[in-house]
Amino acid sequence: MGDSQLTRVKLTSVLLVLQALFIVLFGIFVDYGDDANAVMSTGNETTPNSVKSYYPMFQDVHVMIFVGFGFLMTFLKRYGFGSMGFNFLLSALVVQWQILMAGFLHMEHGKIKIDVTSMIAADFGAGAVLISFGAVLGKTSPLQLVIMAFFEIIFYCVNEMIGLTYFKAVDIGGSMFIHAFGAYFGLAVARVLWREDIEESDKEGSVYHSDLFSMIGTIFLWMYWPSFNGALAPGDDQHRAVINTYLSLAACCVVTFAISSALDAKGRINMVHVQNATLAGGVAIGTSADLMIRPWGAMLVGTSAALISTLGFTYLTPLLSTKAKVHDTCGVNNLHGMPGILAAIAGAILAAIASTDIYGLSLYQVFPARSPVENSTMLQELQARFSEIEAGLGRTAGEQAGYQMATLGVTLGIALLGGTITGFLLLIPCLDRPEGDQLFDDEKFWEVPEEGFQK
Amino acid sequence: MGDSQLTRVKLTSVLLVLQALFIVLFGIFVDYGDDANAVMSTGNETTPNSVKSYYPMFQDVHVMIFVGFGFLMTFLKRYGFGSMGFNFLLSALVVQWQILMAGFLHMEHGKIKIDVTSMIAADFGAGAVLISFGAVLGKTSPLQLVIMAFFEIIFYCVNEMIGLTYFKAVDIGGSMFIHAFGAYFGLAVARVLWREDIEESDKEGSVYHSDLFSMIGTIFLWMYWPSFNGALAPGDDQHRAVINTYLSLAACCVVTFAISSALDAKGRINMVHVQNATLAGGVAIGTSADLMIRPWGAMLVGTSAALISTLGFTYLTPLLSTKAKVHDTCGVNNLHGMPGILAAIAGAILAAIASTDIYGLSLYQVFPARSPVENSTMLQELQARFSEIEAGLGRTAGEQAGYQMATLGVTLGIALLGGTITGFLLLIPCLDRPEGDQLFDDEKFWEVPEEGFQK
Amino acid sequence: MGDSQLTRVKLTSVLLVLQALFIVLFGIFVDYGDDANAVMSTGNETTPNSVKSYYPMFQDVHVMIFVGFGFLMTFLKRYGFGSMGFNFLLSALVVQWQILMAGFLHMEHGKIKIDVTSMIAADFGAGAVLISFGAVLGKTSPLQLVIMAFFEIIFYCVNEMIGLTYFKAVDIGGSMFIHAFGAYFGLAVARVLWREDIEESDKEGSVYHSDLFSMIGTIFLWMYWPSFNGALAPGDDQHRAVINTYLSLAACCVVTFAISSALDAKGRINMVHVQNATLAGGVAIGTSADLMIRPWGAMLVGTSAALISTLGFTYLTPLLSTKAKVHDTCGVNNLHGMPGILAAIAGAILAAIASTDIYGLSLYQVFPARSPVENSTMLQELQARFSEIEAGLGRTAGEQAGYQMATLGVTLGIALLGGTITGFLLLIPCLDRPEGDQLFDDEKFWEVPEEGFQK
Repeated sequence: MGDSQLTRVKLTSVLLVLQALFIVLFGIFVDYGDDANAVMSTGNETTPNSVKSYYPMFQDVHVMIFVGFGFLMTFLKRYGFGSMGFNFLLSALVVQWQILMAGFLHMEHGKIKIDVTSMIAADFGAGAVLISFGAVLGKTSPLQLVIMAFFEIIFYCVNEMIGLTYFKAVDIGGSMFIHAFGAYFGLAVARVLWREDIEESDKEGSVYHSDLFSMIGTIFLWMYWPSFNGALAPGDDQHRAVINTYLSLAACCVVTFAISSALDAKGRINMVHVQNATLAGGVAIGTSADLMIRPWGAMLVGTSAALISTLGFTYLTPLLSTKAKVHDTCGVNNLHGMPGILAAIAGAILAAIASTDIYGLSLYQVFPARSPVENSTMLQELQARFSEIEAGLGRTAGEQAGYQMATLGVTLGIALLGGTITGFLLLIPCLDRPEGDQLFDDEKFWEVPEEGFQK
Repeated sequence: MGDSQLTRVKLTSVLLVLQALFIVLFGIFVDYGDDANAVMSTGNETTPNSVKSYYPMFQDVHVMIFVGFGFLMTFLKRYGFGSMGFNFLLSALVVQWQILMAGFLHMEHGKIKIDVTSMIAADFGAGAVLISFGAVLGKTSPLQLVIMAFFEIIFYCVNEMIGLTYFKAVDIGGSMFIHAFGAYFGLAVARVLWREDIEESDKEGSVYHSDLFSMIGTIFLWMYWPSFNGALAPGDDQHRAVINTYLSLAACCVVTFAISSALDAKGRINMVHVQNATLAGGVAIGTSADLMIRPWGAMLVGTSAALISTLGFTYLTPLLSTKAKVHDTCGVNNLHGMPGILAAIAGAILAAIASTDIYGLSLYQVFPARSPVENSTMLQELQARFSEIEAGLGRTAGEQAGYQMATLGVTLGIALLGGTITGFLLLIPCLDRPEGDQLFDDEKFWEVPEEGFQK
Repeated sequence: MGDSQLTRVKLTSVLLVLQALFIVLFGIFVDYGDDANAVMSTGNETTPNSVKSYYPMFQDVHVMIFVGFGFLMTFLKRYGFGSMGFNFLLSALVVQWQILMAGFLHMEHGKIKIDVTSMIAADFGAGAVLISFGAVLGKTSPLQLVIMAFFEIIFYCVNEMIGLTYFKAVDIGGSMFIHAFGAYFGLAVARVLWREDIEESDKEGSVYHSDLFSMIGTIFLWMYWPSFNGALAPGDDQHRAVINTYLSLAACCVVTFAISSALDAKGRINMVHVQNATLAGGVAIGTSADLMIRPWGAMLVGTSAALISTLGFTYLTPLLSTKAKVHDTCGVNNLHGMPGILAAIAGAILAAIASTDIYGLSLYQVFPARSPVENSTMLQELQARFSEIEAGLGRTAGEQAGYQMATLGVTLGIALLGGTITGFLLLIPCLDRPEGDQLFDDEKFWEVPEEGFQK
């Protein structure tokens, strides 16, 4: 049996075994949520089903994951099939696995009940994996990617549970849980997988129309980001998330063009910046998107994100690669990593200054841990005036801010540790890792038409 | 008058005559539905208008028809204009004609009232025609396509009326009415239009970037398919349709990659599979999307669809072409035909095992024909407990399953018969049928820029 | 300091100064609307937030602005980066500036409150600027474009205020305020910027795949146009806007193909027509989209728009360029200008024949100026029967029609005057205006990959 014979046996087997496993586990554990279960139907159509309320934003997120991330990565001249194709494969795999993993961590009575919000959460999980994919783009086999995705989701779900359930951090747009996590997990993997020939490849560039394909991804990500940050927020929180993200992104786009032009000797604009740094404002506003950051505050965050991201692409990425041996194909550190940290800091600041003066009683809905403890007189008084308040931990503003920062710390720690472990797993010899001329090239893993394939 | 002079006279005349006819018929028969008619407005904005509830999913379906099908077919290296352009023309033509034909078959008091659900149904009709277009892609003139679309919609509406109104079959995603119908209608046309030189053309291939354009279509179809299957379902049925379709497609994508790699000697993945077979799960779950197939059941259907579809592309399509003289340009048999039959069978099985244990009283809403007959005591008792039950035919589960299979049979029969008749109509000599070097080539029907046009 | 050193200093400075100005002005004047303000939250989640009701259509409009206009303009073989990139930059800049300008004109108590409808209005403003951009595409520097956008929004907001607030014209799809305004503003600028070498450039053409990229824009514009025309309409008006736009566009597409084929000696179809004239039906139905124009009326408007637009591209655009020295790169006169005028006329006719026979009491909601004056007995009687009627000006149908036409006149006047003034501002020498070989070419303003860049 030749090498490539083995390749197909391995990839096919791993995928089929995983898919069979998923079906069995779904059969044992997963059922429809009450809102989607015919036997729970009351025949009363005046109570609207939750699918109506979440579905439009779910679809926007769905487009970001499959079109947005997929096309964003097609900028490489000889890796368009891999970018779109593996993006597709990994996402389809991860959404199933995330539903199971998240379900196991939050199971009630041994059953995982799924509804439209599970699909949003599953897509978010795919987002984290795709960000990591961006860091190793062109340098891994599909087999390695599948294994990476499998382990990453375990770390991802555990980290999110610590942050949300134990630390009760707020992070409506997942800037810590998804973006910072996915970026630093991926960078850790990239560090472990680093090899000399990656730096030497002459295929890591774009052609004119591959940059246009990439813009499809950029623009869909940019447009639908308000949905990403607002999908799971209720009422006026969602409204705010949408406005803040819209404004942060608008400012971020303008400043990206400004800085990009300034960084070129001839004042020309760089497509890499336009494709990526324009989106940093969406990440950077994520944690505070539903908070009272005010319109100007959102724009300031977007402006800062553009600065960090554009400068990162120009100065930090080359340095990371040559000095730290971290080769970051898509520059996820600039688009998701550093802006994710910025988001966490902005969120902590907003948490530190949050008060009922600013939020009214909805303070205790936005920061549930700040709500008074169970059975306290204060809780009863508040509930009489504002029905949606639930018992909390009686945290102060400063404490909440501390937990926000602690969540960032834990996220970075788990991401780097998980990524490093996973990276070493991917070094197992039989995983068809591309090398030399196979790097950044579709030829090894795809049946490629000869025509139109840039030499 | 030369040949091409005639071409323009013919195409222009046919289109203008049809459009004029549509306007006249709309003028006589069509008016706004009550929900869209100013004179029916009550000035009470608290009752939500139906446009709010249907419009987001309508737009998703709309994107599938115009972007999804359109770009999916741009994979041919010299037929991108025809794929996008004729997809656009046919759809715009068909939506008007479908509204009229469906209206004529369901007219009340001589008026056809249209609203947002008419637009969804019209887009569904366009879907059937576009599937047939896929079977004959590159082998027909626009004139032939317009004539094909005109007749296909007549057969399509009649078939749907038989299945829905007489047989009372359920098929929420239209896997029988749209997908199986469109595929076998198109294949029958392709059989009649078969000629030796189709097999000999060297233009029936892709170039690297035409495969990426095609992926735009694939991904939009894949993402929005839950809307296609759920658009017309109410409440929890819609929620289920969305979940089942999402899961079926996710499993289908993973298994497509697994099988595609296994089918290549070097273990490489085939873009044709990724572009098409990944979508078979959306078709195959269509009939049972709103039924209680359970999450694992949906994933099993998606897995089966991927198997059938991928193997179909590799083994059946070449065979059909050489042995049966059915040349299927886009492989619609693998993406819509066989998965449509699978959907029908899955639907019949689900119907056969449906009971109030599984569905509660909503059983009679999901399968209206199983509801007790008018004026029966049982009906009154049920209605007292579940307001939305209407009188039915008192069918048993087995009977319903039988009618589901009968609907498949009738659909296949009408599709093949209608397609054959239409195919012979298209053989009329003066319809500018492309031949030889004109096959799979935009040059005859489009003003093509010389640059960038692959030789 | 060399020329290009200056370039980057200028573009960067202007963008950063503008962005800083926006942040300061937002800080002083702008706050969340009540529906998005946490301190106004009542904790009662049963009253739905307005974001739910407007957001899906907002996103459709958003896609039209950023994907639709952006990709539509990528047809030029060497100007894809500029088309997508400057479309992106201008839109991101304009949405912030439009919120401020419109806010200043409608301020209450010194505060501008923003919500999801502000975002729709901001995107509409971007639409007007992008239409003007289409007229000057490839012939201006980013610096010139930014300055043009800045001034255009001032004229745009003033014109809209005159039409809506003073003339109380109806124009739900903005065919006058956005399309006609944007087109004639842009054409006036193009007239002032005309130079001999524009006519002589051999780069003003497409390549095969740039025409396909352009179709991404066309199709997204075409599909989502019903949302553009219906986004801000309430209840049944919105439902009607959606149906009318859908039908107008369908007819427009069919007729465009018919005429396009007739205009070519060989009966071939022209991509320029398919990319642009198919959309004219969306513009032409804009003013009367929510009026009782009836389905056949909408289709007639779409048919007329296709005729005007297709003939305009073939006969008028070349003439304008050679005789009137108005070089219109994207043919915005054919897609937005003349169809916008057609829309205004259709709207005036519909206004002239509007009566309570056709609209019931919602007549006074659709045409608020026709409502009886404050404190009149008639108003009280009407309000008793139809709660949403507010006091108006007691206009007759004829008067309303007159004001509709007056609004068109004022719009054309302000657009042409504003465009001319702005055009002369853009002639200031230091604005890096492209000339000769730099026209229709990305090379001057973008870092362009050498590979795949059409010579």
